[in-house]
Amino acid sequence: MQCAPVRRQTSAILCSACSALVPAHPSLLARRIWHARSDQRTRASSSATTAFPAGVRISRNSSAHLSGAIRRSEAALLTPGTRALIEQGYIAQSASGLWTLLTPALRILQKIERIIDEEMIALGADKVAMPALLKQSLWQRSGRYKPGATNRELLQVHDRKGQHWILGPTHEEEITELVGQRTLTHKSLPLRYYQIGRKYRDEARPRGGLLRSKEFVMKDLYSFDSSVESATITYEAVLGAYKRIFDRLDLTRHGIVMARADSGEIGGSLSHEWHLLHASGEDDVQLCSACQYAANVEFGDKDAGQSECPSCGSGRLTTERAIEVGHTFFLGTRYSEPLGLKFHDADNTQKHVQMGCYGIGTTRLLGVMAELYLKDQRFVWPKHLAPFSLAVLPVNNELDDLTATLLHRYHALGQGRVDKNDIVVNRDYQTDLRKRTAQTAVLGSPTTLIVRDCDADRLDMSVVRSDGVVEVRARSANEIDAALLDLVNAV
Amino acid sequence: MQCAPVRRQTSAILCSACSALVPAHPSLLARRIWHARSDQRTRASSSATTAFPAGVRISRNSSAHLSGAIRRSEAALLTPGTRALIEQGYIAQSASGLWTLLTPALRILQKIERIIDEEMIALGADKVAMPALLKQSLWQRSGRYKPGATNRELLQVHDRKGQHWILGPTHEEEITELVGQRTLTHKSLPLRYYQIGRKYRDEARPRGGLLRSKEFVMKDLYSFDSSVESATITYEAVLGAYKRIFDRLDLTRHGIVMARADSGEIGGSLSHEWHLLHASGEDDVQLCSACQYAANVEFGDKDAGQSECPSCGSGRLTTERAIEVGHTFFLGTRYSEPLGLKFHDADNTQKHVQMGCYGIGTTRLLGVMAELYLKDQRFVWPKHLAPFSLAVLPVNNELDDLTATLLHRYHALGQGRVDKNDIVVNRDYQTDLRKRTAQTAVLGSPTTLIVRDCDADRLDMSVVRSDGVVEVRARSANEIDAALLDLVNAV
Repeated sequence: MQCAPVRRQTSAILCSACSALVPAHPSLLARRIWHARSDQRTRASSSATTAFPAGVRISRNSSAHLSGAIRRSEAALLTPGTRALIEQGYIAQSASGLWTLLTPALRILQKIERIIDEEMIALGADKVAMPALLKQSLWQRSGRYKPGATNRELLQVHDRKGQHWILGPTHEEEITELVGQRTLTHKSLPLRYYQIGRKYRDEARPRGGLLRSKEFVMKDLYSFDSSVESATITYEAVLGAYKRIFDRLDLTRHGIVMARADSGEIGGSLSHEWHLLHASGEDDVQLCSACQYAANVEFGDKDAGQSECPSCGSGRLTTERAIEVGHTFFLGTRYSEPLGLKFHDADNTQKHVQMGCYGIGTTRLLGVMAELYLKDQRFVWPKHLAPFSLAVLPVNNELDDLTATLLHRYHALGQGRVDKNDIVVNRDYQTDLRKRTAQTAVLGSPTTLIVRDCDADRLDMSVVRSDGVVEVRARSANEIDAALLDLVNAV
Repeated sequence: MQCAPVRRQTSAILCSACSALVPAHPSLLARRIWHARSDQRTRASSSATTAFPAGVRISRNSSAHLSGAIRRSEAALLTPGTRALIEQGYIAQSASGLWTLLTPALRILQKIERIIDEEMIALGADKVAMPALLKQSLWQRSGRYKPGATNRELLQVHDRKGQHWILGPTHEEEITELVGQRTLTHKSLPLRYYQIGRKYRDEARPRGGLLRSKEFVMKDLYSFDSSVESATITYEAVLGAYKRIFDRLDLTRHGIVMARADSGEIGGSLSHEWHLLHASGEDDVQLCSACQYAANVEFGDKDAGQSECPSCGSGRLTTERAIEVGHTFFLGTRYSEPLGLKFHDADNTQKHVQMGCYGIGTTRLLGVMAELYLKDQRFVWPKHLAPFSLAVLPVNNELDDLTATLLHRYHALGQGRVDKNDIVVNRDYQTDLRKRTAQTAVLGSPTTLIVRDCDADRLDMSVVRSDGVVEVRARSANEIDAALLDLVNAV
């Protein structure tokens, strides 16, 4: 695509096609910027005439408006991370165990999901989105719904035709039925499907904000293999993907353990829980001092006196509090038998498919991260997981136009490396600068660009990074470009 | 970030940091490519040793496995677009009115949502995600839930504690309560929030696949203003955003009309429906031959004999079938009064907030697009909305390694313009080429790269575009680069 200069301004041309600022000559770019302020003064309106690049988020504090309301009755029960998420405008409570995610939380969740998507694609899994409304009749066939029993954790729905539905906590039955819609042969297998979406559980005691809620977001993966051997290879491949996911989420260094676990309601013959060791957890995990052995105490020998490792025999066991962030199950034929999912094998016989299922709670991960990254009442998110990688704070509305121009230039210099959706500009000019600085700080961005006053001789910018503040005073177009390019490389 | 060459291969270096192929010299790159085939032959495994760029989707036909199962009882009721979506592996039926979205459908939906996100950001709206489970008590206060009445379109849930919930069809009550959690002044307003998520409606007669289902995805926006004047400005701004959204979705040229409509259950004093004129629609819209007047027949004068335009008085009215794809409501104080949402105005009085709500059904849009873009049993999606902008088909597994190398080079040459998630490679080598070509064709990609055989003298590629086939035979590294750069510019 050719650039098509259409908007002539005093001394610079803004390309309507690629949004790059095209100066006729570098010195003219400088004049354009220096003159921004005096241009601005002659205008009645404070809105920018140079539009901000499309996709850049303009914050007028509407997200912050939803911050801070904590029910007094629950305040004492909240973990420090949850309390900060509420007070700083990341989440808002709708009811016990039900939360609204606000923009900063959604941004982090999106970055978590992108990492999971990439690892699922690398695993050869296809993304799907199944309904949350599941047929109760199918759950009766699998044996997970027992008529007459309490089924207390299941949220149930009855429709106008008298049909019964379950709000899905997981989707084993549904995906098994879907895969069985067409004839399967050994050549069709293995198959792997995953989704990232809302799940439902009627928690008796919701707690810790996103750590245990009634409606939450989960990544659930389901695998279909022709033999136990092949299913074991799949299981190992998923364990590898999980390790990479927790590495990339920067959680490994905080102590992620893979613990043998009970298969519980979901069933199957082999199961591992993925735990983050943390005082706010609800689970107890036994760890060996000598080898890699780890097990949920519910799974291990429950004799409280036992302190010798059942795996290596030499290490001593200690018990630590932990938060479950993932669970992997080798299901075998737990679902394929009752639901009749078979494939035609090479030896001309029909066999039941070997299945696995694998979950990661993404909203719970966000809750865990809130506990881990809260320092002195401020979130210090890992650089690649912060809601916005660059926060921009023009100190007053007269710098609006200049800031928009700088961001266009920043984007052009980035040559595709700048994600405009990852930039937020605070333009809440009705609020005083101290409060606006605080609004920007709660986002925990690794880099904040403060655009200060400028006069005919220089432009003042401060670049606030996790590791300190960089003051920039640029006098020429070349100096401005150099400063912006530094920023591109830092973000 | 500096490139960090770590994987030395015969004659090219793959950077572990940026995934670019770094040849020591252009002629070496050519040798690397020419020798890929003979390298491959010496290996037992057919899997690529040159990994495909991270994020590129490798299709082994698992999505296609879920295609094609149509319940015979419903086959006759399906629209042509829905039938093709099912047969070609875009959606699969879970139950009446309940659908699973498969990878190609999710990709299109993601592109629709990105356009909506950008226009909502431009409107200054903050993205949130409210729970689907809503308190029935709040709906009683607003008057939308009437105890004792049938409330037939609402799906209801009773939990273990005997509390009653509604699976949200829209979220007016919920967002009103959230905004009221903190004190509002005239300076806090206007506020605008939106979300994109699952909605629920107990349809008596689900039909047309995604056109009318029980569980669907909707963008819903809510606005809060201090006066009718300000709320009117907001309403006009949203109409502008809707026009841009339908333009960018390429729907305007198919006939989108904004029609005066009844406010129905949701309430308020002014309402517009956005309709796509189409024979498969369920609504009837009256259009004037002379002016822009359009109205749902349910809203207009229902006298069937009337054929004179009530707006201009001179045009004649005709009635056309249409599909509703959006609905905008000026709500006034319909919700703020019963739920007590007030703000402190500049004149020191408390006033009720003026609200608006605005929906676009995104899964329904996908259903509409399926009806519009099906030509001769093949989907021909608009270039920017196709599931993948580039489909890659190596004709046999011996070309795997070469194809991976080409895609690394393609990505490097793109300098940030290539979205790796937008590329799919068909590696379903167990299936014959004719079927694989068909698998690739159903994705409706604007560009397909077929990598054919190569020998020591040349590389054969075919680039299949909507407007024809381009054959490329390249002999040198420079020629290959030129061909790939052409592809970057075409995609």
